[in-house]
Amino acid sequence: MADTIFYSPDIKHTHQLPEQESQHCVKVLRMKEGDKLTVTDGKGFFYDCTLIQAHHKHCVLSIDKEISQPKSWNFNLQIAFAPTKNIDRIEWFAEKATEIGIDRLTPLLCRFSERKELKTERLEKIVVSAMKQSQQAVKPIVDEMMAFDRFIEQPFDGRKFIAHCYPILKRPLTKAYNKGENTLILIGPEGDFSEEEVQKAVNLGYEPISLGENRLRTETACLAAAHTIHVINNLK
Amino acid sequence: MADTIFYSPDIKHTHQLPEQESQHCVKVLRMKEGDKLTVTDGKGFFYDCTLIQAHHKHCVLSIDKEISQPKSWNFNLQIAFAPTKNIDRIEWFAEKATEIGIDRLTPLLCRFSERKELKTERLEKIVVSAMKQSQQAVKPIVDEMMAFDRFIEQPFDGRKFIAHCYPILKRPLTKAYNKGENTLILIGPEGDFSEEEVQKAVNLGYEPISLGENRLRTETACLAAAHTIHVINNLK
Repeated sequence: MADTIFYSPDIKHTHQLPEQESQHCVKVLRMKEGDKLTVTDGKGFFYDCTLIQAHHKHCVLSIDKEISQPKSWNFNLQIAFAPTKNIDRIEWFAEKATEIGIDRLTPLLCRFSERKELKTERLEKIVVSAMKQSQQAVKPIVDEMMAFDRFIEQPFDGRKFIAHCYPILKRPLTKAYNKGENTLILIGPEGDFSEEEVQKAVNLGYEPISLGENRLRTETACLAAAHTIHVINNLK
Repeated sequence: MADTIFYSPDIKHTHQLPEQESQHCVKVLRMKEGDKLTVTDGKGFFYDCTLIQAHHKHCVLSIDKEISQPKSWNFNLQIAFAPTKNIDRIEWFAEKATEIGIDRLTPLLCRFSERKELKTERLEKIVVSAMKQSQQAVKPIVDEMMAFDRFIEQPFDGRKFIAHCYPILKRPLTKAYNKGENTLILIGPEGDFSEEEVQKAVNLGYEPISLGENRLRTETACLAAAHTIHVINNLK
């Protein structure tokens, strides 16, 4: 596999690189006709390719070999979170979560959210670049921001958790989660979820959890939750 | 406890805030004589104090109450790592590791280190601010950068692990580590440790480990290693 990996979701049908990837390939890496490159479709496949036409907007490739590489974990992990006021912090989380492994990221608009709007194009780019950098072939889904009340009413096939800081009954995630279970975890804004939001979620089957003794920032809580699931699934 | 926490390692003897904290107290927060504030010595204690003299270089305080708050974990966790070329990445790790809980951070100079020098003043500041932000009273130790060969010869009372990417026999940290053990984990540079470094460490009792299926960046590997230890110690 080549060191630089390109992303082309429809490579199998188009045999082309998207504009941005074509530009990177031709203008930055200065690749030429006949050069070998590796492409992923973000759907579990790598493709060993040869550059047929080095065009700065739409490189044309021939597919020499198709290599299946499913994700390295056998459960479904989704984190739904209130994006932080400082966008860098949540972008950092998206990068790290992709590296360690996540299926789906859903930004939430909560009662106490400091950030009411979020452009997901940048998150999408960060996730794609982290997927390539960590040599994975499955791209996590990045959802558009959704209102908390609407989101929690959607069905999820697995355990549903909500992390909050209120001194009401809750279990540590490390004790609540069991190996192999699909899981969806809600992480609130800097000002936490409202008590009403927690109650609504609990009424819809979300289990209240804590993420340890220390007070964690939102983005740290998001990554700690995701990584906890991986650690438990990799235990002896 | 007041929302803003100040750091003064020698508060108990000096009854003063250091220059930078004094400036923050007087110039930024504009606190006045008689105001109440909380100070930590970074050694496991909070102090409820009253501002006696609001001086921009050395605030004088009276200690009203001493509150013991030991760290929230009962093992010793040290990560020794090769700092990344991009300093932001390792500073990010220092902040997150402090939030989730770490005892000691040791920058290493390795064979393939891209960063040969490191000023630890900034790391120290980041660790102090993360300690305050996460409302802890114990400050992690930040060591000066040390040569790999010299460091691994030092004694450590606990399990010693070295994470590397070579396809030689190693166990996942999740399977190698046992709850309650003190642990020291070595994380290499972007270019990994040299095979010679790995061999030297193994000869000195370091156990080779992996941190999962995916290829992680140095700073991600550092945090994943630290967090794995916490998760295992918090299992049912």
